[in-house]
Amino acid sequence: MQAAIKQCETCHDVCVRTVTHCLDHGSRHAETNHIRALLDCIDCCATCVSFMLRDSPAHRRVCEICAEVCDACAANCERFPDDDIMNECAKECRRCAESCRKM
Amino acid sequence: MQAAIKQCETCHDVCVRTVTHCLDHGSRHAETNHIRALLDCIDCCATCVSFMLRDSPAHRRVCEICAEVCDACAANCERFPDDDIMNECAKECRRCAESCRKM
Amino acid sequence: MQAAIKQCETCHDVCVRTVTHCLDHGSRHAETNHIRALLDCIDCCATCVSFMLRDSPAHRRVCEICAEVCDACAANCERFPDDDIMNECAKECRRCAESCRKM
Amino acid sequence: MQAAIKQCETCHDVCVRTVTHCLDHGSRHAETNHIRALLDCIDCCATCVSFMLRDSPAHRRVCEICAEVCDACAANCERFPDDDIMNECAKECRRCAESCRKM
Repeated sequence: MQAAIKQCETCHDVCVRTVTHCLDHGSRHAETNHIRALLDCIDCCATCVSFMLRDSPAHRRVCEICAEVCDACAANCERFPDDDIMNECAKECRRCAESCRKM
Repeated sequence: MQAAIKQCETCHDVCVRTVTHCLDHGSRHAETNHIRALLDCIDCCATCVSFMLRDSPAHRRVCEICAEVCDACAANCERFPDDDIMNECAKECRRCAESCRKM
Repeated sequence: MQAAIKQCETCHDVCVRTVTHCLDHGSRHAETNHIRALLDCIDCCATCVSFMLRDSPAHRRVCEICAEVCDACAANCERFPDDDIMNECAKECRRCAESCRKM
Repeated sequence: MQAAIKQCETCHDVCVRTVTHCLDHGSRHAETNHIRALLDCIDCCATCVSFMLRDSPAHRRVCEICAEVCDACAANCERFPDDDIMNECAKECRRCAESCRKM
């Protein structure tokens, strides 16, 4: 559980920073679907962290959705294979999805 | 959608106020499982509102979990049938669960 | 207090929708500083609502910051006087700043 | 900045866990003022993290409030000097207040 919490927090933080990077870059990086996927991931990871920290009965269900939202965000970031920040974000989202699925 | 957003916000607000009520009352009202159910409901409703406002692809999935979390909170509140604030909270949670399920 | 809570929630919701509008529009609407001002306003309003609902001792201090953040967001939105959605957002941010200052 | 972000996240997590500990313990540990101070600290730290991650213009102001809220929470926890979890929470809140003040 502790590892999953840390991974969700890392994913959250990387996604917040990636939003700024994408807006700075503009154009295709700043498309609605892409920024929305990042904002979804940010919100979901934060909620997931709280459920795990409280050891709430529904934490597995929240982790399940969080994994889906992280995967969707990763898929968006992977459309920019030449962008290091996007690659890093995709990698953290995939890791987070995997650790959420283990919960 | 707009009605579901409003219902989630109402449910969120009622649950925050109910936490204070329960802590003021103490004893069985302030048991971990009950306060945790309220805190889960508060976090879930807030996230659900954001997903609906952004019209995110995953909003139906988040609404699905939100409905479950609201029902769990309502079930906890219904254990105190003589407490008006708890009854009101249970009612709003059931309404929110229903409107989330319609999404 | 109840009116200030509702105003913060309205401001929060309008800002979330305005982010999508700005990203859809692109170009100057989607500049980092503008979207960041909206995201700041969204986070601050949500926190402010929670402090007011809990009647927390620090709620006046949080309202004070929220008013500043809302004014900064309004100033950003007012740079687009020909855009109805931006005008509406600026108006709600100014209203929210005003009601937060009264707290 | 990176250290302040990590400290806010640690403080957030410790406070969420301390809420459960206090509710489990009951009695004076679960008094409204104490749990409310913890919930205030949790919300403030989360918002503060987002402002710092975005490098938002208002992050210093949010850190200022966060330091006050963390100190208030620490003062509450320090009323239980024989409780290790409360001591740990107080210590993290004081550290977070200090690192927020340096921003």
